[in-house]
Amino acid sequence: MSAKESAPESIQQDPSAVSVALQPTLRADQARIDAWLEALFATPSVAERLDAAMRHGVLGGGKRLRPVLVYAAGRALGASDEALDPPAAAVELVHAYSLVHDDLPAMDNDDLRRGQPTVHRAFDEAVAILAGDALQTLAFEVLAHQAHPRLAAQVATLAEASGRSGMAAGQALDLAAVGQPADLESLARMHRHKTGALIRAAVRLGGLTAVEADDPRLVALDTYAAAVGLAFQIQDDILDVTSDTVTLGKTSGADAARDKPTYPALLGLDGARAMADDLLDEALAALAPLGDEAATLAALARHMIERDH
Amino acid sequence: MSAKESAPESIQQDPSAVSVALQPTLRADQARIDAWLEALFATPSVAERLDAAMRHGVLGGGKRLRPVLVYAAGRALGASDEALDPPAAAVELVHAYSLVHDDLPAMDNDDLRRGQPTVHRAFDEAVAILAGDALQTLAFEVLAHQAHPRLAAQVATLAEASGRSGMAAGQALDLAAVGQPADLESLARMHRHKTGALIRAAVRLGGLTAVEADDPRLVALDTYAAAVGLAFQIQDDILDVTSDTVTLGKTSGADAARDKPTYPALLGLDGARAMADDLLDEALAALAPLGDEAATLAALARHMIERDH
Repeated sequence: MSAKESAPESIQQDPSAVSVALQPTLRADQARIDAWLEALFATPSVAERLDAAMRHGVLGGGKRLRPVLVYAAGRALGASDEALDPPAAAVELVHAYSLVHDDLPAMDNDDLRRGQPTVHRAFDEAVAILAGDALQTLAFEVLAHQAHPRLAAQVATLAEASGRSGMAAGQALDLAAVGQPADLESLARMHRHKTGALIRAAVRLGGLTAVEADDPRLVALDTYAAAVGLAFQIQDDILDVTSDTVTLGKTSGADAARDKPTYPALLGLDGARAMADDLLDEALAALAPLGDEAATLAALARHMIERDH
Repeated sequence: MSAKESAPESIQQDPSAVSVALQPTLRADQARIDAWLEALFATPSVAERLDAAMRHGVLGGGKRLRPVLVYAAGRALGASDEALDPPAAAVELVHAYSLVHDDLPAMDNDDLRRGQPTVHRAFDEAVAILAGDALQTLAFEVLAHQAHPRLAAQVATLAEASGRSGMAAGQALDLAAVGQPADLESLARMHRHKTGALIRAAVRLGGLTAVEADDPRLVALDTYAAAVGLAFQIQDDILDVTSDTVTLGKTSGADAARDKPTYPALLGLDGARAMADDLLDEALAALAPLGDEAATLAALARHMIERDH
């Protein structure tokens, strides 16, 4: 019992060892979801080029952090890997669609993503728009085909996090913020929607696969996810300043070049790092009621905030 | 009994009278779905401009034929109007999202839709992309919030009709067909996906709201919907040649200007009209097993094929 309870503490004391210990889980989950996503394209559609663009958008590598969070949250509450595959795939499909569209010339106009040409560069704009559209559709199709007993809550969770109250609203706020003076509140609001909502949805989808929607452990998981989501974004801002394009797999310095508000710009690099650390503490504290079962979630929080790309 | 059974026949004999008799139902259903869609925006999102663009995309008029088909098919099998509202709204939201994206400069580059500036003209490209994305998301959110006992079948039906096996594939085929020599088979394949799939989904969603997925009446409805869907598209092609921009509410002659293959181009105007008439007969024949309950569906088939805009 005491050995079990000490696990989260040892995580806090020795983050690098935890990061090493986490690697096999990360690799296994990444391989698992990659194979699952790949299998979705086993039957070709009538539109070959659309299929190829969709595959380019979702199978071109990526850290698969959202599926990893689905698996970790679900396992912490007792869900099976098989039951977690569809929500893990669904949240990654929504993430992939959002990247394909965000990269478009009318949006962020990015040429590089995950070290590869973006979809509209590898194909063309029209096909990139359609591929993003169809990746979003596929997310809901994947959930529907599993027909989980809590499908309604799953679909609602994913849709609310993705649409006009979540990710899409965040991207709209982000576009509107370019060149505007920013404060911490408006920056946090933008990130809470643009990236935070889908990270929270990932954790909730994992939890919902295991337990009923009114289980109090979902509240603990949500506090964790909200803190991790914001810390993750702060780290993203920090990396945009401190990392290089090759390590990052996307164009570094892009935020500053676009005159986008960032945490380092508002708080300085040290201030941004301190804020990420505080959020990490908050996330770890939220996991306390879940005990040892949450060790992987704790390690993931550290990993996401200490990453270099 | 004989009076009831004669109703579909009288429809066939006197289409103009039927079209007149259908008007109150059409108007009532249009008003019903417009109010329902409007209410979705009662709570503003944090992104005002995104909300405004979404409203422009889905509330700017429109014939609401897909919701009308959901209501008619569902009522024919005994569903209540209240149960049919969410699937009717969902299918219209998917239709609206597809129009917003199809009109984009990288796609069909249209300035006018339903007599109004298209979303990217009234706002900008980035917001139009996001508004389309969020309209699609909202379709699935609306279904999830109802949590119908056959939600899994509803979501699967809508997603399969919209994505890489349906509408998105059709739009990709359409883009690839511009300037290419076409035959009837490739043209039918494109339309079966681009517009046919969603019309079939509308009818099936209505049916599924009333009966189990293995009910044989859904097969009859699907035969009807497949014929009506293709006939509808042929009529669209005919109107693009014969109607004017004001009547149409979108730019007439646009297909020819883009060198898009059409039924009148392949079959001549008379040939295209004859094909639409044959499909109408096929649709009406499919409804026979449903008896008098299908009178509105029969009238709708006539209305969709005899419309002038």
